[in-house]
Amino acid sequence: MEKSVSCDTVESMDKVAPGANVNRAIDAVRALLGDNRVSTAASVREQHGKDQTWNVGAAPDAVAFALSTDDVQAIVKICADEKVPVIAYGTGTSLEGHFSAPKGGICIDVSGMNNILEVNPEDQDCRVQAGVTRKTLNTALRDQGLFFPIDPGADASLGGMAATRASGTNAVRYGTMRENVMGLTVVMADGKVIRTGTRARKSSAGYDLTRLFVGSEGTLGIITEVQLKLYGIPEGIAAGICSFPSVEACCRTTIETIQLGIPVARIELLDAELVKALNAYSKLDMPVGPTLFVEFHGTPAGVAEQSQMFGEIAQGNGGSAINWATQEEDRAKLWQARHDAFWATKSLMPGKEALATDVCVPISRLAECVVETQKDLAEHNIYGPIVGHVGDGNFHVTLYCNRDDPEELKHVKGAYGRMIDRALAMGGTCTGEHGIGAGKRDYLLKEHGEAVGVMRALKLALDPDNLMNPGKNAGP
Amino acid sequence: MEKSVSCDTVESMDKVAPGANVNRAIDAVRALLGDNRVSTAASVREQHGKDQTWNVGAAPDAVAFALSTDDVQAIVKICADEKVPVIAYGTGTSLEGHFSAPKGGICIDVSGMNNILEVNPEDQDCRVQAGVTRKTLNTALRDQGLFFPIDPGADASLGGMAATRASGTNAVRYGTMRENVMGLTVVMADGKVIRTGTRARKSSAGYDLTRLFVGSEGTLGIITEVQLKLYGIPEGIAAGICSFPSVEACCRTTIETIQLGIPVARIELLDAELVKALNAYSKLDMPVGPTLFVEFHGTPAGVAEQSQMFGEIAQGNGGSAINWATQEEDRAKLWQARHDAFWATKSLMPGKEALATDVCVPISRLAECVVETQKDLAEHNIYGPIVGHVGDGNFHVTLYCNRDDPEELKHVKGAYGRMIDRALAMGGTCTGEHGIGAGKRDYLLKEHGEAVGVMRALKLALDPDNLMNPGKNAGP
Repeated sequence: MEKSVSCDTVESMDKVAPGANVNRAIDAVRALLGDNRVSTAASVREQHGKDQTWNVGAAPDAVAFALSTDDVQAIVKICADEKVPVIAYGTGTSLEGHFSAPKGGICIDVSGMNNILEVNPEDQDCRVQAGVTRKTLNTALRDQGLFFPIDPGADASLGGMAATRASGTNAVRYGTMRENVMGLTVVMADGKVIRTGTRARKSSAGYDLTRLFVGSEGTLGIITEVQLKLYGIPEGIAAGICSFPSVEACCRTTIETIQLGIPVARIELLDAELVKALNAYSKLDMPVGPTLFVEFHGTPAGVAEQSQMFGEIAQGNGGSAINWATQEEDRAKLWQARHDAFWATKSLMPGKEALATDVCVPISRLAECVVETQKDLAEHNIYGPIVGHVGDGNFHVTLYCNRDDPEELKHVKGAYGRMIDRALAMGGTCTGEHGIGAGKRDYLLKEHGEAVGVMRALKLALDPDNLMNPGKNAGP
Repeated sequence: MEKSVSCDTVESMDKVAPGANVNRAIDAVRALLGDNRVSTAASVREQHGKDQTWNVGAAPDAVAFALSTDDVQAIVKICADEKVPVIAYGTGTSLEGHFSAPKGGICIDVSGMNNILEVNPEDQDCRVQAGVTRKTLNTALRDQGLFFPIDPGADASLGGMAATRASGTNAVRYGTMRENVMGLTVVMADGKVIRTGTRARKSSAGYDLTRLFVGSEGTLGIITEVQLKLYGIPEGIAAGICSFPSVEACCRTTIETIQLGIPVARIELLDAELVKALNAYSKLDMPVGPTLFVEFHGTPAGVAEQSQMFGEIAQGNGGSAINWATQEEDRAKLWQARHDAFWATKSLMPGKEALATDVCVPISRLAECVVETQKDLAEHNIYGPIVGHVGDGNFHVTLYCNRDDPEELKHVKGAYGRMIDRALAMGGTCTGEHGIGAGKRDYLLKEHGEAVGVMRALKLALDPDNLMNPGKNAGP
């Protein structure tokens, strides 16, 4: 195990010019897949190296479009032989420079691996190829009365969601990808293919490789198939909007809801800035102030009881009358608005790059963390609307800046760093659901200290040549 | 990564006679802890090397009684310097030779590490030393209206429960140790101490070390503190007993209950043999036949609705009228009987060693797996009562034999092996909650194949000298 580990950020990593080995690898991949499924066009490479945020991206040397685990295995073997980096790419919706290629290499685009391989209604599970998106899966499941609850804002691929340990609005009730991936098919750095997990709901057999790969961001292997838990679509669903006099009142309401054992399915905090942005972008007329979006799942009687109990708690904390969306189309509109949060704020800041970031703290510290962050942003005159999966203590701030202006960049980065330091000081984490990627490597070290050395030892045991998505997460 | 891995079973591992290094290590540990906290007495060593089952145990060379993470760290450092194995011991209630010392070494008994370090009611979490048992924790929590749901039959230590990825009757609703451990303090093989996880409910920061150590059975490091999720004690609880015409009817009832989204807290299958044993041991008068024990948690109205819905499903599958235990003391008696299952059957087989084993399959295959197992046992005239956490597809069979009779041993082991092969063929796992230990290493390989090579690579990266509980789980 290494004594100490340093994590370079993407800014400090110089792109190495492609060598003969890279060209040989590209030729071999071309011979394997045919010319139509390998691209070295600048536009394709750039699109596969740069995400929607302010992270500086670096283009891979080529993009290969895989259609099967066999394809991925063959490409990885070629890259292993030629010592060329390999980077997996799903929908390109991750937010921390996850698929940037600072050391070049071959990007494997798995978006064409979009088959749902099996659905087992009695067992409430399914197996999909890594490129299937969450919305595609849910559309296919609807007729069987089943759904998959994890919903990051984007219509991300399930392989990518597993790789980044994604979650979303339903996590307070249904958990994150950590709790909902039953097993994975993974191509290892040496080209071996393993299956982690079985179709059993639980197991004590061996080390939990499934959970090790979930959240490893392509640095330990490439996920090609994902086995998932599913849930019955609840018979009763009620969603509502309630505004509050303060962020503290929102958080107090959330804590009391959870303490009473009300199995809230979604409970989302939107601060006044975000409500303003959503009103403008999604043509809504919500009262501008701290607001909770909530949803309850269960039997009709259960949902009625939960809604009433929640209403009483909200009233006790100064909440408004609740605006209930009882029709499916009203609920869909409500949650679409919530999922549009990123774009709503981005539309107010044309020409600026977004820094979409998130932290997660113990729920008892959430109000304090949000309010101090708001105060910090106000004091430094920085626009940063806040939205939170408040039942988990997780909140997002989207900051904007012109990253070509070094002063502005430094100014905004200061607030960003203080927010993370504040979360860590409260016993929280530097990211609840976005991940480390290239962007948060310094904070990984701050958060985990010596444990990053353990992560690094695991990485090098499985990928001694550091070819799997180098420069990301805990890897070198 | 190794090309192939073989897992020796405990039977084939010869105990090495203690060398000078072992004696030096014992002297150093004595100097550290004082004579009272180190024992080389044969009775103490034997008790710390042999579990309640038919697994052949091997005594460690000494037992050290640790009171703190610092103690454990100092002992591990001494053992690392002297290249002496280290085996952690909690309550000694694991079932697969987990704490046997086939290569000798020092057993670290953490049962004296029994302090509850913090309880955070608003966040519904706590941190305890590894030796705190589940019942001790729940007694301490009761006044605060909180509980920790994971309940293996024994009053096990929470460190041991984390190390073996334990679960129990509540797992269908609350999950296993995998879902309920938020973080760990671990002493690594080189003596480094790491904290995994934070107090945040979720995180995407780095590799999931918490889940890697949960279930690693002391082979990757020694757990000294455990941070756990807690739950509010439900306002309403109803438990009941319902007998059925067949195992299939029990399983069908369970599947329909889960498909309808009824959040059943416990749903346990007892076969006719087990009902007979429990009637005798716990002085009950249950009708002898396949039986479900169920429990519902929620608001009083919610529990009433769940109970009624379950009752209708049970009736539809030929179930009896349900015998509801509404008083807390009746419920306690019911679940105590369930937890006494092992002792109830053992009392019918005096002088025989128990082979308490479990498998877990997709719930759609459970009835078939249980019935085929019953048929196999009957055909081979082997006594093997069955009890199952049927909501998870997990069931236990306790087999008995005189292990000094090679014919009988072979006969019983045949049924045991066929049961595991059957579960694996159905997409299941060789153990749902007991773990691998020394006893199921062959089956770990059968189940995971190439993936065991990955586990082995991780093990050797963190413990290159193979000093942490050697001969267990995926380690050499």
